[in-house]
Amino acid sequence: MKKKENKNGSKLKIIPLGGLEQIGLNITAFEFEDSIIVVDCGLAFPEDDMLGIDLVIPDVTYLEENIDKVKGFMITHGHEDHIGALPYVLKKINVPIYATKLTMGIIENKLKEHNLMNVTKRKVVKFGQSINLGQFRIEFIKTNHSIVDAAALAIYSPAGTVVHTGDFKVDYTPVYGDSIDLQRFAEIGKKGVLALMCDSTNAERPGFTQSEKSLGRIFDTIFAEHSNTRIIIATFASNVDRVQQIINSAYKYDRKVVVEGRSMVNVIDTASSLGYLNIPENTLIDIEQLKNYPDNKTVIITTGSQGESMAALSRMASNIHKKISIGPNDTVIFSSNPIPGNEKAVTKVINELSVKGADVIFQDAHVSGHACREEIKLIYTLVQPKYAIPIHGDYKHLKAQATLAQELGIEKENIFILSSGEVLEVDDMSANITGKVPVGSIFVDGLGVGDVGNIVLRDRQHLAEDGILIAVLALEQTSGELVAGPDIVSRGFVYVRESDELMEEAREVIESATLSCLNRGISDWGKIKSTIKDALGDYVWKKTKRRPMILPIIMEV
Amino acid sequence: MKKKENKNGSKLKIIPLGGLEQIGLNITAFEFEDSIIVVDCGLAFPEDDMLGIDLVIPDVTYLEENIDKVKGFMITHGHEDHIGALPYVLKKINVPIYATKLTMGIIENKLKEHNLMNVTKRKVVKFGQSINLGQFRIEFIKTNHSIVDAAALAIYSPAGTVVHTGDFKVDYTPVYGDSIDLQRFAEIGKKGVLALMCDSTNAERPGFTQSEKSLGRIFDTIFAEHSNTRIIIATFASNVDRVQQIINSAYKYDRKVVVEGRSMVNVIDTASSLGYLNIPENTLIDIEQLKNYPDNKTVIITTGSQGESMAALSRMASNIHKKISIGPNDTVIFSSNPIPGNEKAVTKVINELSVKGADVIFQDAHVSGHACREEIKLIYTLVQPKYAIPIHGDYKHLKAQATLAQELGIEKENIFILSSGEVLEVDDMSANITGKVPVGSIFVDGLGVGDVGNIVLRDRQHLAEDGILIAVLALEQTSGELVAGPDIVSRGFVYVRESDELMEEAREVIESATLSCLNRGISDWGKIKSTIKDALGDYVWKKTKRRPMILPIIMEV
Repeated sequence: MKKKENKNGSKLKIIPLGGLEQIGLNITAFEFEDSIIVVDCGLAFPEDDMLGIDLVIPDVTYLEENIDKVKGFMITHGHEDHIGALPYVLKKINVPIYATKLTMGIIENKLKEHNLMNVTKRKVVKFGQSINLGQFRIEFIKTNHSIVDAAALAIYSPAGTVVHTGDFKVDYTPVYGDSIDLQRFAEIGKKGVLALMCDSTNAERPGFTQSEKSLGRIFDTIFAEHSNTRIIIATFASNVDRVQQIINSAYKYDRKVVVEGRSMVNVIDTASSLGYLNIPENTLIDIEQLKNYPDNKTVIITTGSQGESMAALSRMASNIHKKISIGPNDTVIFSSNPIPGNEKAVTKVINELSVKGADVIFQDAHVSGHACREEIKLIYTLVQPKYAIPIHGDYKHLKAQATLAQELGIEKENIFILSSGEVLEVDDMSANITGKVPVGSIFVDGLGVGDVGNIVLRDRQHLAEDGILIAVLALEQTSGELVAGPDIVSRGFVYVRESDELMEEAREVIESATLSCLNRGISDWGKIKSTIKDALGDYVWKKTKRRPMILPIIMEV
Repeated sequence: MKKKENKNGSKLKIIPLGGLEQIGLNITAFEFEDSIIVVDCGLAFPEDDMLGIDLVIPDVTYLEENIDKVKGFMITHGHEDHIGALPYVLKKINVPIYATKLTMGIIENKLKEHNLMNVTKRKVVKFGQSINLGQFRIEFIKTNHSIVDAAALAIYSPAGTVVHTGDFKVDYTPVYGDSIDLQRFAEIGKKGVLALMCDSTNAERPGFTQSEKSLGRIFDTIFAEHSNTRIIIATFASNVDRVQQIINSAYKYDRKVVVEGRSMVNVIDTASSLGYLNIPENTLIDIEQLKNYPDNKTVIITTGSQGESMAALSRMASNIHKKISIGPNDTVIFSSNPIPGNEKAVTKVINELSVKGADVIFQDAHVSGHACREEIKLIYTLVQPKYAIPIHGDYKHLKAQATLAQELGIEKENIFILSSGEVLEVDDMSANITGKVPVGSIFVDGLGVGDVGNIVLRDRQHLAEDGILIAVLALEQTSGELVAGPDIVSRGFVYVRESDELMEEAREVIESATLSCLNRGISDWGKIKSTIKDALGDYVWKKTKRRPMILPIIMEV
C-alpha cells in the first residue's frame, strides 16, 4: 500500500486521554490534520476512597469537541480496562468499532446489555488486515496475551508510523492460534517506525514470561495428585486458553466440568460459539447435575480468583452459595495472582476455604499475560523506533521501561513518559509536548454517569467515618417562634439506645443554641443553622472525639 | 524451684480470648484452679468494612467474670498486636503487668497517654527470671524478633508446663543482645513439656529467616552506591535494631541523621534512654537543621513504610509535609514489606515519589521477624511437647504449622487449632475442648469504646455506599394536617445543583405518599414513615438504580 503523502508537513498528535496515572482507563487519540482515531476505550475500577462508585470511565470532552474528525475506535483486546467504557462513550461518540473476532464478541455482549447493537457500527478485523480511516491506515498485528485474539496496531500516518503493542507477551507455544507475529514487527521496523508505545506492566521483571501452555502440565499434575477429591479452579473469566487447558485436563482425567459465575459462563459461551474453545462432547454438565457424579469425577471452573465478595468462589467460601458447599473433599486451586489491592480479600477467601477443610493450592498455577524485560527488549530491537512512549503500568513501570529503552540506545530526549491529556506532536524531525487537553475520571454509580463528583464523594467519606446527626426544628413563619423541636436523629454515629444521655444533652445543646439566636432576634436561618452546627459539633467532639456530619433542618410552619 | 503439686488432679485451662481468627488481638488466659494469668493484650487494626473505627480490642468479659482469679498480664514484646489493648483492658482488669525492660518502656508510653501510670502496677522482668503468681510460675526466655527484648514464656502449672514462644525468630547474630536462648528451650523440653504454643506466621515459608544483621551490609552498599543523594529510609518505628543499623551506616558514611514521624521519635527516645540504641555524638540532628547540610550528608529515618496516609513519608510523597520535599536528589528506601492489605497504599506512595524524580528502592532492605519452617522445626525438636497449639497467623498458617507438627511426630489428635473462646483443658493424660467462653471484637472510635456496634457500622456502610435522603414534614398535633413540608435534603447521593428535576420529583413522591396516608385517615406516624420510605425508595431505585438511606422525619406542631 502506498504511503500517504504529508503535503503540509503536519505532525502526528498522540494524545493519551487516560491510562497513565492509574491502572485502567486506557484510551489514546491519534490525530493527523482532519482525522482522529481512538485506540481502546477502557474503564477503571474504583479506588478504595471512591465510595459507592461502580466504575470509572474517561472524560472524552476532547473527542466530543472534535467529533467531526473522529473516525473510529480500534480495540486491541477484550479486557475491561480496554473496552469497558465503550457503552458509555459510544452514547456521545458514535463511531465504528474495529476489533478482532473474539474481542468483538465480548464487546457485543456489552452492547446488547446497553441496547446499543442497532446503533453501533462494528467491523471485525483479521490479523494482517489494514483499515483506512481518513488520513490513517491501521494494521492489526497478532500478539499473545492472557486473552485470545489480542492485537498490536501499526498506525500509519503521513507523518510516520506508530507501533502500539496493546497488552502483550511473547508466547512461542500458545494454546490457541499463532505466536505473536514477530516477523511483521520486524518488517514494519525495517521500513522505519516513528514511535513505539509498548506495554510496561512487567518492565521491572527480568527474563521472559512463561508460556500459557506451561500450565497444561501443572494442571495435569494437580489432577493426578488429587484424584480422590473434587477440584475447584478459580481463574479470570476472560482467559479462554486457561479454561481450555482445565477442560483438557478434566477430559484426560475423566471428570465432568461445571462452569460457575456469570462472567465465566458468558465468556465461555461467546468463546465456544466463535470457535475459540474446543470442548469435548459430554464434558460440560449443568450445575444441577453435580449431585449425580462422585466428587472425584467433577471439576468446577469458577469466578472469584480475586476474592471479589459477590463472586461464586467467595460465596462458596462464606457458605452463601446456593448450590455448592465446600468441605474436606475439595481441592481449590487459585489459577491467578492477586491484582494489587486484592491481596487481603484473597487471603480471606483462602482462610474460609481452609477452615472448611478444603485443600487450597495458591501457587504455581498461573502465568502472567504481560511481557517481561527480555520480551520488551526483543520488541524494541525488532521495531527500532525513533521515539519511545512507555504505556500501561504504574509510573514505576513506565519509568523502568524508559530506562530499558535508554539502555537499548534510544536517546534520552526521545523517550516520553506522558501524562494523560498531554499532546505529543511528532514527526521524523522532532517530538514535543505542545499542549494539554481536558481529561479526567467520570464516576458511574447505578444509572448515573457523572452525577457523583468530588463533593458527593467527600460527603460519603464523611458519613462513612462518623455518621450523621440531624437537628430538625420548626419555626413559626411570621413570629419566628420555635413551634416544634428541636429533635435530634442520628445514623451511623452511636448506638442510640445505649446513649440516651448523650443524645438528650445534644438535644439540649441544639435547643439552647436555637433559643439564644431567637432571643437575640436573629431570623436569618443560615445564621441559626451555623450556630447549631458549631454548638453541636463542639459538644460532640468534646464528648466523643468524633466529627459526625451535622445537618440542621429548619421547617417553616 | 520445686514443682507445685497437683493435689486435686485439676487440669490446666488454655483459653485464647482473641488472635486466632484475625491478625492482632493476641490475648490468652491460662487458668488453673483459683489462678488466671493472661499472656499479651493486643489490639487489631480495623478491617476495611469497619468504617470510622480507630482500633479493635478484645472482649474480656471472661476475665471480668473471674476477676478474683486474675493475677497479671505477661507481655511477650512491645508490638501493638500484643500490647495495644492494655490501656483499655486495664480500666476493667487492673492487675500488674510483667514485661522485659524495653517492652515495659513502650507500654509505659501508652499508660502515660491514658493517665494510667499511677494506678497500674508494673514489674520489669529479666530473661531467666521467674514470676510466681498463684498456682503459676512464669519464666521469661530470651528470643529474637523484629523488636528488641522479645520473650518466650515457660508457664509452669501443677498440671504441667506450657511453652509459649510469643512472636520469634532464631537470630544467631542479633544486632543487640543475645541470640535466642536455645539451651533453655532444650532444658525445659528435657524436663517435659505439656504443650507448645508456637508462632505460625511464616509456617508456609521454607528454610531459615535471615539475620537482622544481614541488613547492615545491605545498608552499607546502598549508602556507598548513593553517595551523591540524600537518603530517606522508611521502616517500622519499633524495629530498634533496624534503626541502629541505619545509624551505623550513616555514621560510617559521615551523614547526619534526622528522625521523622511521631511514633519513630517516641520509640527512638525510649530505646535510647533505656540503652538499646547506641547513637554516636553529633549524629542526630533536628529536622530544622537539615538545610544546613548538603543532601548527600543527610539521612532521614521515617515512618510510613506501609503507605499509611498520614505518616511522614506519605506526606512527603504527596507534597503536604511541611519540612521535607522530595526531588530527583533523593534515594528512598523501603526497609519493610507491605503487611497484607497495604500493598496498594505502598504502591501509591512509590509512584508519587517516582513522579517527583526520587530513586525508590523497594527490595532487599528487609528481613522478617518471624520463624520459617526450619526454625519452627528446631523449637519443636528442642521442646518436644506432647500437645501442639499453633498460634499467631492466618488459619492457613496455623494449618501449615499443624501439618509440620505432625511431620515432626506429634500425634494428630494432640494438635489443636483452636478458635478464640474455646477452653482447652490439658494435663499429661489428655487434652480436650470442654467449653466456650464469650469473646469478640470491641470497636474503639474516638473516645467511645464499644458504643459503635454492628448496627452503627451497617448504617455507615449504607451511608458510604449511596448517601442519605431525608424527608421532613410537620403535622398539626390534633388535626393531623400537613402544615409544613415535605422538604427533602440529601447528602452523598447526587450533586443536587445538577439534579433539580430528580429532587423535585422526589419531593412530589413524598408529598403524594404523605397525603394518601392522611386522606385515608392514617394517623400512625410509623405507618406514614414506612409509606414514605417505600415510595421514595422505589422512585429513586427506578430513576438511579441506587439505594440511599431514606430517613423520614415527622415533626409535631
